[in-house]
Amino acid sequence: MKIIFIGSGNLATNLAMAFKQLGHDILQVYSRTIESANALAIKLDTAATNDIKEIRNDADLYVFSVTDTALPTLIPQISQGKEDKVFIHTAGSMPLSVFKDQVQNYGVLYPMQTFSKTREVNFRTIPCFIEANNDKAQSVLFSLANELSDKVYLLTSDERKYLHLAAVFACNFANHCYALSADILNRHNIPFEVMLPLIDETALKVHALSPIEAQTGPAVRYDENVMQKHLDLLLENPLVKEIYERMSLDIHRMAQNQ
Amino acid sequence: MKIIFIGSGNLATNLAMAFKQLGHDILQVYSRTIESANALAIKLDTAATNDIKEIRNDADLYVFSVTDTALPTLIPQISQGKEDKVFIHTAGSMPLSVFKDQVQNYGVLYPMQTFSKTREVNFRTIPCFIEANNDKAQSVLFSLANELSDKVYLLTSDERKYLHLAAVFACNFANHCYALSADILNRHNIPFEVMLPLIDETALKVHALSPIEAQTGPAVRYDENVMQKHLDLLLENPLVKEIYERMSLDIHRMAQNQ
Repeated sequence: MKIIFIGSGNLATNLAMAFKQLGHDILQVYSRTIESANALAIKLDTAATNDIKEIRNDADLYVFSVTDTALPTLIPQISQGKEDKVFIHTAGSMPLSVFKDQVQNYGVLYPMQTFSKTREVNFRTIPCFIEANNDKAQSVLFSLANELSDKVYLLTSDERKYLHLAAVFACNFANHCYALSADILNRHNIPFEVMLPLIDETALKVHALSPIEAQTGPAVRYDENVMQKHLDLLLENPLVKEIYERMSLDIHRMAQNQ
Repeated sequence: MKIIFIGSGNLATNLAMAFKQLGHDILQVYSRTIESANALAIKLDTAATNDIKEIRNDADLYVFSVTDTALPTLIPQISQGKEDKVFIHTAGSMPLSVFKDQVQNYGVLYPMQTFSKTREVNFRTIPCFIEANNDKAQSVLFSLANELSDKVYLLTSDERKYLHLAAVFACNFANHCYALSADILNRHNIPFEVMLPLIDETALKVHALSPIEAQTGPAVRYDENVMQKHLDLLLENPLVKEIYERMSLDIHRMAQNQ
C-alpha cells in the first residue's frame, strides 16, 4: 500500500516504521517543520515536506498522526484533490466525525500504547481499535491493523474516548507515580533501580488479580499514622502532598465500596 | 533457625513461607485473633496462638510483621524473658528505635514488595533493606536476607522512611491508577485485559528511560483541549476529577523543570 504520513511525532514514527517493515511504501512524510519531517523521512528512506501543496495525490492512504487540535484545520487543506483516497487518524481522543463532509472514506486506527521515538515497540501485542465510515475504509483498516497486531477491535468514537481516558490513568498517571517515586529517591541518593522489581510486580499482579484486589499499603488499611508521617515528608511540595491525600482518600473509598 | 512470627498478614504470610522453604523452623505464629493465627499456622504446619503469654521463649528470632501502631505496645509485652534473642520488624515506615530500651539485639528487615496472601512471590529478586543495632543482630539479618534475596542493602531508618514513601507512589498509587482505569472501562463494558499491554510497557519502559523521559500523553504536551474533554467525562466523580487535574498539573511541572 502507498501511504503518506501527516505528522512525525512519537506515534507517527513508530507506526510508519512498522508499516515500512511490513512492506508498505511510505511515499512521503509531511510535518509542520521540515526538520521534524526530515527526521522521520530519513529513518524511512523517503521524502519529506513541510508544504501542504507538495503532498502527493497518488497515495492509497493518508495517515494523520498529529496533535488533536491540528486535525480540523489540516484535514480540509490536505484532502483537496484526493477525494477517492482513504484518510485515517490515530488519536484516541478525537471522534471519527472530524473527517465528516471533508472526505469520502475515512476511519480511525488507535494503537493503544505509549510511544517514544527512541524505543521500538512490538505492534503484534498492541491492542488496535478501529472505526470507519464505510466498507472501503473499514476493509483497508482491518487489513492494515491485522498485519500490525494480533488484537484488533472495532470500537465506536464514544467508547474510544473513555478508553483513551482509561489509558491516561493506566499509563501517564501510573508513570507519573514512578516519576514522583524517582524524585523522592533521587533527593535521598537512593538509585531508582531498587524500585523496578516493585514496579514490575505491581504491573504483573493485575494480570491475575483485579487492581482493587491487588491493592496493599497504608491507604487501603487507612493507617492514618503512616499516612500522616508521609504527608510530613511532603511539606515542601504542596501539589504532591495534595496528590498523596487524594489518592489515599480514593484508595480508601474504593476499598470500602468493595 | 528457630523463628516465631508475630503477625499473620500479607507480608508475614509470604515471609514465613519463604523462611520455611529455606529450611528454617517456624515454631509458632502469634496473631491478635486465633482465626488468622491458625490460617497462617496451617500453611506452615506449625502452632498458632493469640495469647501473648503462650509465645515460646526458645526461638532464636522473633519477627514482628504487624500494623505499625501495634509495634510499640506488642514489643514490651512479648519480649519479656527473651532478652537474649534477636527481634526484628518488617515495616518500611517504622524506625529501628521502636525496639530501643526494650530488647538487646534488634533490627529491621524490609523486603520492598507488594504482598498478597493469594499470590506467591519470588524473594530472590526482591530488594531487602536491613538495619540492626549491633553486630549480632546485623549478622543474623545479613545471613537471613542473603538466603532470601540476591539484593540486600544496609539502609538507615531515616533513608528507609523516604524509600517507603517512594514505594507507596510506585506501587500503591500506580496500582490505584490501574483501579481508576479499570473502573472507567468497566462502566463502558470494555474488558480490563485490553489495558494490560499498555500497563506492561509503561512498567518496562522505565527500565530503559527515566520516568520523566518516558512520559507521554496530553498532560506532558499540556494539551488543554484533550484534558478538558477528559475532565468533562469525570464530572460525576469530583475526587477522581481532582486527581486528574493535579496529576496533569504535576506532570506538566516536571516536564517544564527538565
